[in-house]
Amino acid sequence: MYEIPIGVSARHIHLAPEHIDILFGQGYELKTLKPLSQPGQFAAEETVAVVGPKGRFDKVRILGPARGNTQLEISRTDAFALGVDAPVRLSGNIDGTPGIRIVGPKGEVTVERGVIVASRHIHLHTDDAARMNVKDKQIVSVKTQGERAVTFANVVCRVSDQFALDMHIDTDEANAAGIRNGEKGTLIP
Amino acid sequence: MYEIPIGVSARHIHLAPEHIDILFGQGYELKTLKPLSQPGQFAAEETVAVVGPKGRFDKVRILGPARGNTQLEISRTDAFALGVDAPVRLSGNIDGTPGIRIVGPKGEVTVERGVIVASRHIHLHTDDAARMNVKDKQIVSVKTQGERAVTFANVVCRVSDQFALDMHIDTDEANAAGIRNGEKGTLIP
Repeated sequence: MYEIPIGVSARHIHLAPEHIDILFGQGYELKTLKPLSQPGQFAAEETVAVVGPKGRFDKVRILGPARGNTQLEISRTDAFALGVDAPVRLSGNIDGTPGIRIVGPKGEVTVERGVIVASRHIHLHTDDAARMNVKDKQIVSVKTQGERAVTFANVVCRVSDQFALDMHIDTDEANAAGIRNGEKGTLIP
Repeated sequence: MYEIPIGVSARHIHLAPEHIDILFGQGYELKTLKPLSQPGQFAAEETVAVVGPKGRFDKVRILGPARGNTQLEISRTDAFALGVDAPVRLSGNIDGTPGIRIVGPKGEVTVERGVIVASRHIHLHTDDAARMNVKDKQIVSVKTQGERAVTFANVVCRVSDQFALDMHIDTDEANAAGIRNGEKGTLIP
């Protein structure tokens, strides 16, 4: 019985360097609002608006640092509100995903792909993985407690010596399970 | 292994007769848009707006017929958007729940209680309950399939010869499980 801390990801966006230039001005550097659970990752002070065919969200938090590809991560509830048919995908796997219009203070850009509903997953440090006897890419389940207790199946394990132990779920999953950021689940191999 | 059809409940409201009078005019009768899975229940043509401290929803569907107490059923996502701390409750159990302002075409009313996040539950006809060997108020689990497969624990069974077999979950639960209205789950006693 291994306990896994659960982090709830609200909608957020990762930006490629060239899109930061367009949205915030040439050579702009994101400012750190607060560090995230994964080493080196941070919530930026800056936000952007994202605009879909049916709706828009202002103040979508940027997570830094800049990445190779721009990627908007939303819940399925958000996808309905925007009018974008975003598939469930692991972060980085954006081939064939829909695009979105992104508006910043200095400019705007429409990306042709990059909108996903993130697959729930667990980041494990190599030591955690060894202790729990799970491997990179292994599929496990995680059980939660409480009045809305659920067992999430199809949870992907991601193992690296750059990771800190944390399960990531989106706001739909958190709300369905009645859990808040930092609560714990139990790993079921 | 018993299969249960799953109905996804979007936000909706049940109105007491005196509130229909205020919102739509004295003696107003709701019109049926379409019948629901439970005999005698219907989605009405009419909608109202609901207004909370942080946000509002226009066009909230009224479900008929009129009931003893007005009750607004929302998801936890909706609760955050409205700014109302709605607890998870079985329908009808509204003591101590927050109120809400309701706006109709002919008037408005602020109720002092009645906003809930509905507990997931299964309606079973008496014959279904006998076949599946479950009793009224029994707590079961229901497992779903697919890329976002989950097992919902703490599902309340409600048995009556007035009910048709249907599990009711809210939009957060449906989105977290990646399922749409009419898909099926498996009962785990």
